[in-house]
Amino acid sequence: METTVRKIYKETNTFENKEIVLHGWVRNHRAQKEFGFINLNDGTFFENIQVVYEEQTTENYKNIQKIRIGSSVEVVGTLLLTPNAKQPFEVKATKVILLGDSEEDYPIQPKRHTREFLREVAHLRFRTNLFSAVFRVRSLAAAAIHEFFQNKDFVYAHTPLLTANDGEGAGQMFQVTTLNLDKLPKDEDGNIDYKKDFFGKRANLTVTGQLEGEAFAMAFRNIYTFGPTFRAENSNTQRHASEFWMIEPEMAFANLEVNMDIAEEMVKFIINYVTTKAKEEMVFFDKFVEPGLLERLNLVKDASFVRITHKEAIDILINSKVKFENMPKHGEDLATEHEKFLTEKHFNGPVFVTDWPKEIKAFYMKLNEDNKTVAAMDLLVPGSGELIGGSQREENLELLVKRMEELHVPTKDLDWYLDLRRYGGCVHSGFGLGFERLLMYLTGVENIRDVIAFPRTPNNLEF
Amino acid sequence: METTVRKIYKETNTFENKEIVLHGWVRNHRAQKEFGFINLNDGTFFENIQVVYEEQTTENYKNIQKIRIGSSVEVVGTLLLTPNAKQPFEVKATKVILLGDSEEDYPIQPKRHTREFLREVAHLRFRTNLFSAVFRVRSLAAAAIHEFFQNKDFVYAHTPLLTANDGEGAGQMFQVTTLNLDKLPKDEDGNIDYKKDFFGKRANLTVTGQLEGEAFAMAFRNIYTFGPTFRAENSNTQRHASEFWMIEPEMAFANLEVNMDIAEEMVKFIINYVTTKAKEEMVFFDKFVEPGLLERLNLVKDASFVRITHKEAIDILINSKVKFENMPKHGEDLATEHEKFLTEKHFNGPVFVTDWPKEIKAFYMKLNEDNKTVAAMDLLVPGSGELIGGSQREENLELLVKRMEELHVPTKDLDWYLDLRRYGGCVHSGFGLGFERLLMYLTGVENIRDVIAFPRTPNNLEF
Repeated sequence: METTVRKIYKETNTFENKEIVLHGWVRNHRAQKEFGFINLNDGTFFENIQVVYEEQTTENYKNIQKIRIGSSVEVVGTLLLTPNAKQPFEVKATKVILLGDSEEDYPIQPKRHTREFLREVAHLRFRTNLFSAVFRVRSLAAAAIHEFFQNKDFVYAHTPLLTANDGEGAGQMFQVTTLNLDKLPKDEDGNIDYKKDFFGKRANLTVTGQLEGEAFAMAFRNIYTFGPTFRAENSNTQRHASEFWMIEPEMAFANLEVNMDIAEEMVKFIINYVTTKAKEEMVFFDKFVEPGLLERLNLVKDASFVRITHKEAIDILINSKVKFENMPKHGEDLATEHEKFLTEKHFNGPVFVTDWPKEIKAFYMKLNEDNKTVAAMDLLVPGSGELIGGSQREENLELLVKRMEELHVPTKDLDWYLDLRRYGGCVHSGFGLGFERLLMYLTGVENIRDVIAFPRTPNNLEF
Repeated sequence: METTVRKIYKETNTFENKEIVLHGWVRNHRAQKEFGFINLNDGTFFENIQVVYEEQTTENYKNIQKIRIGSSVEVVGTLLLTPNAKQPFEVKATKVILLGDSEEDYPIQPKRHTREFLREVAHLRFRTNLFSAVFRVRSLAAAAIHEFFQNKDFVYAHTPLLTANDGEGAGQMFQVTTLNLDKLPKDEDGNIDYKKDFFGKRANLTVTGQLEGEAFAMAFRNIYTFGPTFRAENSNTQRHASEFWMIEPEMAFANLEVNMDIAEEMVKFIINYVTTKAKEEMVFFDKFVEPGLLERLNLVKDASFVRITHKEAIDILINSKVKFENMPKHGEDLATEHEKFLTEKHFNGPVFVTDWPKEIKAFYMKLNEDNKTVAAMDLLVPGSGELIGGSQREENLELLVKRMEELHVPTKDLDWYLDLRRYGGCVHSGFGLGFERLLMYLTGVENIRDVIAFPRTPNNLEF
């Protein structure tokens, strides 16, 4: 019967001593004189299955011996349990048919390749153990997010990617146009005539779905977005990409505490989901990518996330007497070394930092009664620093407008957003989770380029 | 206890004669002399709950009477069953607290608004019955798609939106840039110097994730994408938008038959999912949007989808003796009237049309042995026409290159795609499902602008 490697691993007994047909790719091939071994991977499961063929019992023996790494094949054979061998079972082949050859220069050979090299063949790197594991976990983490919010009856909202708003700072946005740049239309004053552009005005790629998400929340109460966002920042770090996916829940009638409760519950749910559904992959990361990963994640599952204010965080840092490169200061942002100290040394676990100085946070965050801080929260985690950022939103129309004016956010363009306060506004909160940051945290992979299939970074637009 | 309208409808007995606290928005308010009724919707459920308040038993009676449509309120009261009334139950309020006022000019009054008008207040239209229903079904249909493919262990693939490929025709793509259009850098020949652009080359928004999806399938066997795609077509029809979501499964070792099997199973799964999980919404569509909708959908759930070749389809059309505006012709595309005849008259159900003339299909489709047709399939459904388009892909390197050259698709830019044939290529297939088309089909809503929260069409980039 035709089956898959996944099914054989999951329901081994069903296939014992049965004839099976498999389709997959040759990951490794050791041809001996009178027999040979093929490590077959069919993409359905992290582990390979060993195929044994022998001169005596396998058809077309000579041709099989020539099959190259990377080729696709059909294998017909019998599943034999091998309790005394390294592998729990193997397929004794009666037939191995070459379906698609693989040329001699196939780049993914069964040896160590650097991650830099593998980025250059990103279309083939899924066929290595590391990237097979990364992108299956990526899929499962995404499924976990949907399951978590759908189980709670949150509405999944698709917010637009094309926008006329300039979000949190026009300089970091990509412009989108159908104008012919070689022949730009000009108006009477010699300026570019955006009336002639596709949308009749200047268009950008969005940096966040939050504002539209708030409109959804004011009707559905609990919603989440999960889609791509864009940053045109010219930064070439291990943690920045120009195109990445974000999850942004938004909840009406929810204050900052509820916001943190949901964030904490979500993180635990995702960890539990991937460590259960991708056991083999997670063991691989623990063994080859970040020793101690599973222990770190398991700790989080059972931990109660610490919650401290920004002021308390700074006090802890100052009182620690540690010589930081950047001196911790009240009213200022936390540096990476501060985050590391708090999560890895002082608390040894995830920490919510709340009530941030308003100067370093966005215009839409709820002003606290002290008039100095806002009801914001960052979730810091060991190993990764900031994983989640969120806030209670300013629902008071006057205060919001005042803050926008102070920060030169054009109220005219966002009049629809102000409507959400004019008509039945309410206490509401939300947060943003960078999906790739989450994946780096879950897998231990330290470069964002290795958790995005085809990463987009400055000067990098391949595939 | 604090609860939600959803919980009250789903577990009514738990709340009978109990004191409850609700947060929500006033959908309607009828203030009488000594009592009043508020229709409260809290976004968690399609139906409202009726709140009754009386001069004798409700605090702050005078203020409550002034509460305006659209305001957000907190209601404290007792849930009473009302088996003899129109509503199954109501809340007898002891307190109604105004949380967020709604100005007098609130556009969503409890009366009929045209859909055109509601598009102008798209940020508020979720608060009407129609759009509350549409966007909850949208969320559930998305969840159904993930559940369907995850249950089958398909890997969810995020393919890039920013691309240097020009996909299926450069004229229909949006260009993405960070260049200052007022001061475009030029090279020595006076051409725009894209080396100075963010990616060091010209960038576009993608029209499909299929090609990258194939790279995933060649490693994971079964994968699906679900993300936004873009078309810069200047067409103002009810069925075209510039930004929409697409689902694109891709399966290795799968021929066109398997492809159709999965597509059929998926459509049935989604229909079953939304009609079960959004009963109230679906009844609403059936009653107010498209009478007969539920019957139509239920028929599909149990139908075996017809499968005919393009040649057979044309024969049926010709033999029907119907006077079509466009004469059906062998070798040519089907017109909308032809699709309607096949699905609504001749077969009265969904129809797969296969084996299309190669001239009217894309370069990557598998050439049939007749050398004239390709192994493509379109799924046509009553009421909506084409819902799904898919094909077996050309896995033969030489034939693929030949076809690309014939159609002037630059092989150089897609060399990585050709690698998928050089290294372990195999029979594989996939299809594309336009998510908004599916939603129009599921809800009966006839304009794509009404199933996208903030639609982007030519000259339309609001919110």
